[in-house]
Amino acid sequence: MIRVLLVHDACLVRSVLAQWLSREPDLRVEDVPWRSAAGRVGAVRPDVCAADLDCSDSYGLPPLGDLCPRGGGPMPPRLLVLASAHRPGLLKRALEAGALGYVDKAGSPEQLLRGIRKVAQGERFVNDSLGFGFLKAAEMPLTRRELSVLTLAAEGASVAEIAGNLHLSHGTVRNYMAAITRKTGARNRVDAIRISQGQGWL
Amino acid sequence: MIRVLLVHDACLVRSVLAQWLSREPDLRVEDVPWRSAAGRVGAVRPDVCAADLDCSDSYGLPPLGDLCPRGGGPMPPRLLVLASAHRPGLLKRALEAGALGYVDKAGSPEQLLRGIRKVAQGERFVNDSLGFGFLKAAEMPLTRRELSVLTLAAEGASVAEIAGNLHLSHGTVRNYMAAITRKTGARNRVDAIRISQGQGWL
Repeated sequence: MIRVLLVHDACLVRSVLAQWLSREPDLRVEDVPWRSAAGRVGAVRPDVCAADLDCSDSYGLPPLGDLCPRGGGPMPPRLLVLASAHRPGLLKRALEAGALGYVDKAGSPEQLLRGIRKVAQGERFVNDSLGFGFLKAAEMPLTRRELSVLTLAAEGASVAEIAGNLHLSHGTVRNYMAAITRKTGARNRVDAIRISQGQGWL
Repeated sequence: MIRVLLVHDACLVRSVLAQWLSREPDLRVEDVPWRSAAGRVGAVRPDVCAADLDCSDSYGLPPLGDLCPRGGGPMPPRLLVLASAHRPGLLKRALEAGALGYVDKAGSPEQLLRGIRKVAQGERFVNDSLGFGFLKAAEMPLTRRELSVLTLAAEGASVAEIAGNLHLSHGTVRNYMAAITRKTGARNRVDAIRISQGQGWL
């Protein structure tokens, strides 16, 4: 029996997906939204966390670290993510969080069953159709520092606020913004934010 | 028998939802992504279009007009939308497109069945939990003109480009941007875009 914790923010979709998974005799499924995921991982001790990378809180970035607590017991759950090739930033985050399974939301639901069973055995599972997304993820042009600057800018912070927050001079922030705009192929700051959010970097 | 066309962009979720709906003896379900919806409405002639308001193309705004073609035959399908209270802009668009049904994605899947059956009879169906979203939709602070300006700005257009595109002077565009920033309670232009996109105005 594989204990699965399904993490997805839209209750309607999550319930139907959980019912669908529960028809399989070898799966025992519980479903939660992202905000409750960390608590349930501790309580349910699932074998596999199957988590949708789209998250309606925290600026759309899923708190993947909540699912794989460091030093949080003998055996953290194995992580499988529901992903899209056109949001490489989220794929990169899932890689960094140590996800074993990558199921394409643009594919068939049977892939999710295959993925859960593979990952439960400790094996990697990646849908071919996500390949281009991983390629884009590897080409991510911005440094961590540039991402910090752009994240604050996207939240509406001014140059002065960004400088204060990151202990930089105004000129340095402006240099970072210029580099970000150039590297993302954007026309200006707003365009750089749009491009980066679209790809899931922010 | 109610013919349902389910419109949703994520194939995995859409397939499972369609299978789940198809277990009902009175529903005959076909499912398509948004980009194929217009063509299938003409071919399938569904009684009800059940459409997810989240759309992965055209800057995330669903082409609702495709589902209710004007003068497109004797009887356009009745429209039911899967919506979220925190994106009032999309609720407003669904209202303007003449949707009869409003099912909250944060609610239970049984609401979707109830909604489809109500709407098939030509009756309105609205989940109570969407009430706050409708309230916010009614309070939408921006004029159509201001929305046009902000939409171009969000795409990365400069003041000069917006002015050229909308046949306005640079000063007028700057005045619009100032009004938009004030009305949305934003700190600056980037913040106004962030707030407006988050609420589904853009």
